[in-house]
Amino acid sequence: MKYPAALALVSLLLTSGAHGHDSVEHLQVDHSIIPAELAAEAVLIRERALLDNLPVNIVESLTTEVGPRRIGTEGDKRAIAWAVAKFEELGFDRVWTEEVTVEHGWVRGEAKAEITSPYPHNLVLTALGYSVGTEGDLVAEVVEFATFDELLAIPEGDSLNGKIAYISYSMADYVPPEGGSPMGGYGQGTRARGQGHVEAAKRGAEAIVIRSVGTDSNRIGHTGSGYGYVDGVRMIPAAALSAPDAILIDNMLRRGKPVTMKLNMTSRITGPITGANVIGEITGREGSDEYLVLGAHLDSWDEGTGAIDDGAGVGSMMAAAAMIGQMDQRPRRSIRVLLFGGEEIGLVGVRQYAERYENEIDAHLLGAEVDSGGGRIHTLTSGVGEAAVPVVREMYKLIAPLGVAWSDANDATGASDMSVLGRAGMPALNFDQNSNDYFDFHHTPNDTFDKIVPEDMRYLTAAYATIFYLAAEMDIDFRK
Amino acid sequence: MKYPAALALVSLLLTSGAHGHDSVEHLQVDHSIIPAELAAEAVLIRERALLDNLPVNIVESLTTEVGPRRIGTEGDKRAIAWAVAKFEELGFDRVWTEEVTVEHGWVRGEAKAEITSPYPHNLVLTALGYSVGTEGDLVAEVVEFATFDELLAIPEGDSLNGKIAYISYSMADYVPPEGGSPMGGYGQGTRARGQGHVEAAKRGAEAIVIRSVGTDSNRIGHTGSGYGYVDGVRMIPAAALSAPDAILIDNMLRRGKPVTMKLNMTSRITGPITGANVIGEITGREGSDEYLVLGAHLDSWDEGTGAIDDGAGVGSMMAAAAMIGQMDQRPRRSIRVLLFGGEEIGLVGVRQYAERYENEIDAHLLGAEVDSGGGRIHTLTSGVGEAAVPVVREMYKLIAPLGVAWSDANDATGASDMSVLGRAGMPALNFDQNSNDYFDFHHTPNDTFDKIVPEDMRYLTAAYATIFYLAAEMDIDFRK
Repeated sequence: MKYPAALALVSLLLTSGAHGHDSVEHLQVDHSIIPAELAAEAVLIRERALLDNLPVNIVESLTTEVGPRRIGTEGDKRAIAWAVAKFEELGFDRVWTEEVTVEHGWVRGEAKAEITSPYPHNLVLTALGYSVGTEGDLVAEVVEFATFDELLAIPEGDSLNGKIAYISYSMADYVPPEGGSPMGGYGQGTRARGQGHVEAAKRGAEAIVIRSVGTDSNRIGHTGSGYGYVDGVRMIPAAALSAPDAILIDNMLRRGKPVTMKLNMTSRITGPITGANVIGEITGREGSDEYLVLGAHLDSWDEGTGAIDDGAGVGSMMAAAAMIGQMDQRPRRSIRVLLFGGEEIGLVGVRQYAERYENEIDAHLLGAEVDSGGGRIHTLTSGVGEAAVPVVREMYKLIAPLGVAWSDANDATGASDMSVLGRAGMPALNFDQNSNDYFDFHHTPNDTFDKIVPEDMRYLTAAYATIFYLAAEMDIDFRK
Repeated sequence: MKYPAALALVSLLLTSGAHGHDSVEHLQVDHSIIPAELAAEAVLIRERALLDNLPVNIVESLTTEVGPRRIGTEGDKRAIAWAVAKFEELGFDRVWTEEVTVEHGWVRGEAKAEITSPYPHNLVLTALGYSVGTEGDLVAEVVEFATFDELLAIPEGDSLNGKIAYISYSMADYVPPEGGSPMGGYGQGTRARGQGHVEAAKRGAEAIVIRSVGTDSNRIGHTGSGYGYVDGVRMIPAAALSAPDAILIDNMLRRGKPVTMKLNMTSRITGPITGANVIGEITGREGSDEYLVLGAHLDSWDEGTGAIDDGAGVGSMMAAAAMIGQMDQRPRRSIRVLLFGGEEIGLVGVRQYAERYENEIDAHLLGAEVDSGGGRIHTLTSGVGEAAVPVVREMYKLIAPLGVAWSDANDATGASDMSVLGRAGMPALNFDQNSNDYFDFHHTPNDTFDKIVPEDMRYLTAAYATIFYLAAEMDIDFRK
């Protein structure tokens, strides 16, 4: 399409409310900042992305042909090979892997539990990542703590000797303080998930069981990583109950009778493992020594197929860059898609990436990551130098018709893995997503391809493709 | 409360739209059919039921203190003892059990499966009731049939030798024909669930796997009963995949590559078992030789705690009768709550009940059953003699304010177990419920107490208590 026609389309799309977001302003772009021709190209890439199922197809491919891919497993190795092949198939100019090493691997084994008294019941739970096993049946009375702070409030010592500590805190029932985010409930839950096994052991407990950190009511546990064991503190098993099983135990405990659980977990920690970050580059027409980075993590937990966490990130980031790569010419500056390994066990891949690129942080012109599922973007927040804010604000106008709001906070440091680079000084954007059902499925066997909503994935990808296309074409210093 | 005040309340409640059902007519009761004083009592019981959490508390007690209770299991024995004790606690006048015998019991064992090729994946599935096991690993290519009819369309013989038949039919995607019920999708699905193991074996298959008959997208299989094996046809294993696992296999098959499954099931059929029907009676002040019957089934599938199927029926029926028993005097005629054993394996308990009471069907003045979860009633349909229809229509007016519509069909034969008695000649009512999410949870580990919505249970119970109170007080012959 040549420019006069393209400009007419831009004008139409910017003013017609074509996407039905009547409440979103259709803002006039300042063409002294974004030239009309460039804005037209950005609109074209946005509109093309809305019609292109590529991000969904990538997630389908990853979840079907690979599936679960916890770092160090056979699935992870298949995922790395898959990612290399997919980047090549999509026409990326350079594709390579960078090894990620981890001191310990982990074998999930099986996790079984039942209530033996006062009322026999089988329970559904899942081992928390890197938990040790029980070495046979562990039978002990359950001692409930409504919150992690209640556990911390009892003194270290032996008061939980012979007991299983149980933290009944429910993320689903979290009510944010005024002005607070509903995500606060996740933060509260992950305190016990991350440190419970250490703090319960310091008080003598034989094991810790938490209510899963999630928002669903399915008979499915949510796994997730502990922050590791601590020298000098006994290594006790840690597991997460499904919400209905936690409610069942709560109802038993309300009767005032002792509740006894039998727990049997065969999980175990192993020796060193390796994984990889996989990187694909659309090389800029002015060279490859400066680049914009789109992040996601390739690894997943091992019970689902990692569709929303983080297949959605892999699909949208690969597709957004590939669509930019399908324009008539390469963008001025390079775009790299960084697919990190080992995010789920503590941002391992990006930390090693940050060390490797320690002296090249300035080459990372701008970064962002999708790691909250496949939902649409609702708010764009910059984290750039003051001089660049008005430029990003003009770029934003081109995704406003997708239903995106603008935040003036300018405090973005990048989501998930990308936050490590953001804190190291890389300018960042946060694309906040609708993730209403994300914690229904997150870290469970239920994280499967059917949870992806294709139209939402297309909207998500369109927002990234548009902004990163503009950022790659324009000669802006985003640094703070 | 004395009558003038009660009548004022009736007037208020019948005209004020107190329950917010603005679209429901508040109909004037014909006091030549239902005397004003009796209507006032009926409104009182209805309003009291709306405030009384008893039905919910009964479900909580059953699901917490007993849990799963498949006929013949230890859970079922506990359930029978629980039901006797609960009837007594609730003040029923007579409580007894009647043995139910079953030719074979069944041990669920474990059901594991994986795709070994083209892409290795663990699968989530569940054994269908009374399936045999695999006797070790069964590894075979999957042959897909989109519907049960597609399987039936291939000739009997050996064309499926060495294969696993897979029926990918999805209840969730069922579109009813014009004027048809969405329940048609369940009927379609249960054909394969009930007969697939016989029809696939007739065509040589080693096993049959179906997509679960359900409407959810959880990584949880839905069990359910086959209709038994057939003499002269090989007994092959039968299992149901979770919806996401079925979709995964569909996506693999679309790639045109052979899909190989490894299946290992340790389920097995055993010798005879016994269970019981448990009966509680509120004895009428004019004697116990004629009675109205409220039905539910006490048994449940074995992976959840049987909250919606059929704890909701047990709770609402026990509570409705108990509330009638709490009135100032016993009703004129008796009310019996029939809690059947073995419904899930083919209406076994009610069939034996019907044989036992073959010569006393006329003593069953009117029956109804709750076996569709804890949702509110949306439509009342009679199945009574023509002369009694206008009377039931007047009774109906007293539950119209609960959001209930009236159907003129007069073709009710009673739901679930009660249909056996309905077909034997017992007059019946059908209270059609909102069961929008029923097939999300039905026959799965997810059928747990948290799925009960207390206010809906109170509405449900209020409708039954009101109608059966009136029916027990009035001297009506409901027979056809």
